[in-house]
Amino acid sequence: MKNTTILKVNETLLKKELEEIDSDLILFVIDSEVQKKYPTLIKNLQQHDNKRVLSFVSSNGEKSKTFEEYQNGLNFFLEKNIHRRAHLVGMGGGAVTDLSGFIASTLLRGISWSCIPTTLLGMVDAAIGGKTAINSKYGKNLIGSFHLPHKVWIDTSFLSTLSSSDYNCGIGEVIKYGMINQEIFQLITQRKDISEIIFSCANYKNYIVMNDFKELGIRQILNYGHTFGHAIEKHYQINHGESVFWGMYLIGYLFGAQRDVENLIKLNEVFNCPFTKPPWLNKTIPVQNFLEYIKKDKKKTDDKFINLVLSSDSCAEIKKYALQEIEEIFNNKIQELKKIEIKNN
Amino acid sequence: MKNTTILKVNETLLKKELEEIDSDLILFVIDSEVQKKYPTLIKNLQQHDNKRVLSFVSSNGEKSKTFEEYQNGLNFFLEKNIHRRAHLVGMGGGAVTDLSGFIASTLLRGISWSCIPTTLLGMVDAAIGGKTAINSKYGKNLIGSFHLPHKVWIDTSFLSTLSSSDYNCGIGEVIKYGMINQEIFQLITQRKDISEIIFSCANYKNYIVMNDFKELGIRQILNYGHTFGHAIEKHYQINHGESVFWGMYLIGYLFGAQRDVENLIKLNEVFNCPFTKPPWLNKTIPVQNFLEYIKKDKKKTDDKFINLVLSSDSCAEIKKYALQEIEEIFNNKIQELKKIEIKNN
Repeated sequence: MKNTTILKVNETLLKKELEEIDSDLILFVIDSEVQKKYPTLIKNLQQHDNKRVLSFVSSNGEKSKTFEEYQNGLNFFLEKNIHRRAHLVGMGGGAVTDLSGFIASTLLRGISWSCIPTTLLGMVDAAIGGKTAINSKYGKNLIGSFHLPHKVWIDTSFLSTLSSSDYNCGIGEVIKYGMINQEIFQLITQRKDISEIIFSCANYKNYIVMNDFKELGIRQILNYGHTFGHAIEKHYQINHGESVFWGMYLIGYLFGAQRDVENLIKLNEVFNCPFTKPPWLNKTIPVQNFLEYIKKDKKKTDDKFINLVLSSDSCAEIKKYALQEIEEIFNNKIQELKKIEIKNN
Repeated sequence: MKNTTILKVNETLLKKELEEIDSDLILFVIDSEVQKKYPTLIKNLQQHDNKRVLSFVSSNGEKSKTFEEYQNGLNFFLEKNIHRRAHLVGMGGGAVTDLSGFIASTLLRGISWSCIPTTLLGMVDAAIGGKTAINSKYGKNLIGSFHLPHKVWIDTSFLSTLSSSDYNCGIGEVIKYGMINQEIFQLITQRKDISEIIFSCANYKNYIVMNDFKELGIRQILNYGHTFGHAIEKHYQINHGESVFWGMYLIGYLFGAQRDVENLIKLNEVFNCPFTKPPWLNKTIPVQNFLEYIKKDKKKTDDKFINLVLSSDSCAEIKKYALQEIEEIFNNKIQELKKIEIKNN
């Protein structure tokens, strides 16, 4: 398995990197929002003397991760007489790089690819590690593959045009890294520059992935907060990072120690407390629905048990739980849980 | 990379093999024609005390290799609350095992699979080697992946219900193995039992695949006859095996030695000359169309050159040709080529 190289770039460096791709054919998959915001930059990146360039503009966000978009993307390129040595470049948020990687992994039975994440979530998580996917009507990311990008080019200048909600979506994942890795916890609490934190998160994820590409062991720790997070995201229709934050909170509250909840609050504070009110505040928490959703989650090992990732003072551990047991723990704490919110200091 | 195990089985052994699959969940993808012909056998294979079994019945033949069927198959399983340790079993002709493997490779980002080829073509070629695919409107097998089956169970009793046209379709590939491997050439010309020949072809293909899974080198020799074969199949609408036979004939005639054409005729005779009249006999040969199709073929390395597989006395070699050169060779011999047919001795 080849490794992914993660590089910090600016426009000039990025252009040079594209120039040096070892192929005479570049297939761009570009997020429509990025195309709209950066037309001049994109035009510059598409111009190459010795390469043919084809560009498929995909929908933005989760709308890009449909069967239709996947099929449209494949047919767009196949119609144009491409070959196996083509190199695909996905450019956009996490959803678009997920789609891009899945197209690359199945076009002509798999071509190489690289990506340019343009959101914080993409830079620290989605674009790293070769998990590619589209959604099914039965759940997110249920159709996909493992297909490592050759390079991930991180240009943090894209962050300047992110909405605060999209930015906070990434912060949820950055906090996750702080909860499972002590060095990143230090970087955050020492209030280092966000570029440095991003690069550390991306490299840490890359390191974990290299040690467990197919998520049979250690890679599962990256799912910290995600098992409940996905159910929360689905039920309350809030964004991914926020869902992961409350997924981590739930895990800490239900299964972990007080210390973890405190760490979570500490990291949240560094980023000016983007997360204060849990989505279930003064609402019902549909435990049965959550468990049903988790049962459909692809991470469970069989019909009765799931692997949960717990954190203990910025170290993650994986533990197998019976769904029955989770239900009991949940029901015991549900009344007090409903009233808690995080105070903005 | 794990190897594929190829096993000769009968119904009893097959049932036992399924019983021993290391999963509590089996996902069958079954060719509708096989379901119709063997309802009792299939019912028997589906009954397991300690396993949950889900069965998706797909269309038969190339109709199964569409986007719609792929999507239907995925959704059929995803709806039913499956997990990653599920094992998929594809049962049917080469098209259905191609579809099955592609579903397995992308369901929950890839689950393990095995298959039960029920046609001669499936047993000697399609089911072996982990090339999975569906078709696009721009060509065959343009969307897919490399995903090795865990086991391939060969039960030659399925051959008794094959139509002679389907049988001959497989014979085209068997002859191909004879043209690229001397041992198989011997087995055929010594008129050994077809079971023995099938098992040798399957194991030979498996051996080649293990040495070059992603078709970067030696595996390309298995495409002998296929570059032109695919163009012939598309243009004259004849079956795969017949197309491959005439693809090999064309290669021999245009680029090879007289000896290869003689060997081809000798192997054809052993199987009672299923192939006598080339599809272009007294018709036009649309050289330009063929080359256009070949240009779209995923095997070409760039826009101007393609790799062609040639045979020399049952040894294959790979040679790079300019499309321009192929066109000239073709045009020089086209008039005499149009009149040739193979005499049935």
